[in-house]
Amino acid sequence: MSNSKRAVVLLSGGLDSATVLAIAKSEGYECYALSFDYGQRHQFELQAAEKLCQKFDVQKHVTIEIDLRKFGGSALTEEIEVPKDRDEEVMATGIPITYVPARNTVFLSIALGWAEVLGAFDLFIGVNAVDYSGYPDCRPEFIQQFTKLANLATKAGVDGSGEFNIHTPLIDLTKAQIIQRGITLGVDYSQTHSCYDPNEAGISCGHCDACQLRQRGFENAGLTDPIEYQT
Amino acid sequence: MSNSKRAVVLLSGGLDSATVLAIAKSEGYECYALSFDYGQRHQFELQAAEKLCQKFDVQKHVTIEIDLRKFGGSALTEEIEVPKDRDEEVMATGIPITYVPARNTVFLSIALGWAEVLGAFDLFIGVNAVDYSGYPDCRPEFIQQFTKLANLATKAGVDGSGEFNIHTPLIDLTKAQIIQRGITLGVDYSQTHSCYDPNEAGISCGHCDACQLRQRGFENAGLTDPIEYQT
Repeated sequence: MSNSKRAVVLLSGGLDSATVLAIAKSEGYECYALSFDYGQRHQFELQAAEKLCQKFDVQKHVTIEIDLRKFGGSALTEEIEVPKDRDEEVMATGIPITYVPARNTVFLSIALGWAEVLGAFDLFIGVNAVDYSGYPDCRPEFIQQFTKLANLATKAGVDGSGEFNIHTPLIDLTKAQIIQRGITLGVDYSQTHSCYDPNEAGISCGHCDACQLRQRGFENAGLTDPIEYQT
Repeated sequence: MSNSKRAVVLLSGGLDSATVLAIAKSEGYECYALSFDYGQRHQFELQAAEKLCQKFDVQKHVTIEIDLRKFGGSALTEEIEVPKDRDEEVMATGIPITYVPARNTVFLSIALGWAEVLGAFDLFIGVNAVDYSGYPDCRPEFIQQFTKLANLATKAGVDGSGEFNIHTPLIDLTKAQIIQRGITLGVDYSQTHSCYDPNEAGISCGHCDACQLRQRGFENAGLTDPIEYQT
């Protein structure tokens, strides 16, 4: 049942998860990419995810639909205005309104289910504790706790056939470092989508937290962001 | 944000979760019932859940669709034959083919997301370590670990505004004791559905593990199961 070179990679289609996919691939994993359609505004991420899967030759790409709008509670899934042009300091404090309740817990749980079916014990997720310090489920202690849970929640936890490992290769990197790493590994960032509030054509707003962090990342890396922004 | 009398109750529409709903209600909780349509064969459970919500006057009932068939790996979601007429001893050993990978982890994670939106800190789940000893995610240590995770994964874990509690009132009860408890609390078990493999009219098979445990439970409780079985 165990297949140590299979990995489930959470792939939103954003800059971070694109880099994570490239890292998993570079480490020799046979990648199974998992995306979620959870009623998010930025559906363009899903199209980006599809392109990345082709590029990085993933074994299988599954998109799970799960309508978290039924609960409400986040600007990403409800008709609440996405905050724009916030200071970096403001962004770094408190929990952003764009936080989706228990999102990473839900995503990792579903990834765990797939891993169990595949006989895979490696999960990859692009959480980052630098830029998103306000998200409780991006912290290292959350990941450690989820790993413990994974090893209790599954067949492997009962029969000892393997041990789950949650890989978070970006957790301590700045956005600029993530971009530099990705470019080394052949990520074409023009194929990624980050904006929380794109227009109907999918063009990024340039002003939401995600756009600002992305733009600043390219700037700090001394590079030009290859995607188009609304003028 | 905290509302200590709100609870999210996982409600499949089966005998166990119906009893859990009655218990939560009897303890004074304002109940928010959560069901899942995960491509299971026993869709009749969902209809049963709806009836139970009316009976127990739940505040809101949400059914989340999540297509776990995309992963495969279980007789409940794939076209694998549901095992019939198994000995109690066989049932109690090993992990049954009807196990859905990481199911309770996924369900509890989504319940946690809703609880966070509601400002609720109490979750109720009908896991049972007596009859389903083969399911890794029905064990007390799994529940303890999930509780720790919940308190790290959420806003409350960051701002200390509350502490999550996962209630498992059935965990140490036999099926007969569950039924007796439910009857005391007014559960009408004719409104519940347990069978893994009902016919097209929703009539239970009487031979799958769920039917057998149910029938034995009523027998041991000295009661008659009010539902109909295929002859």
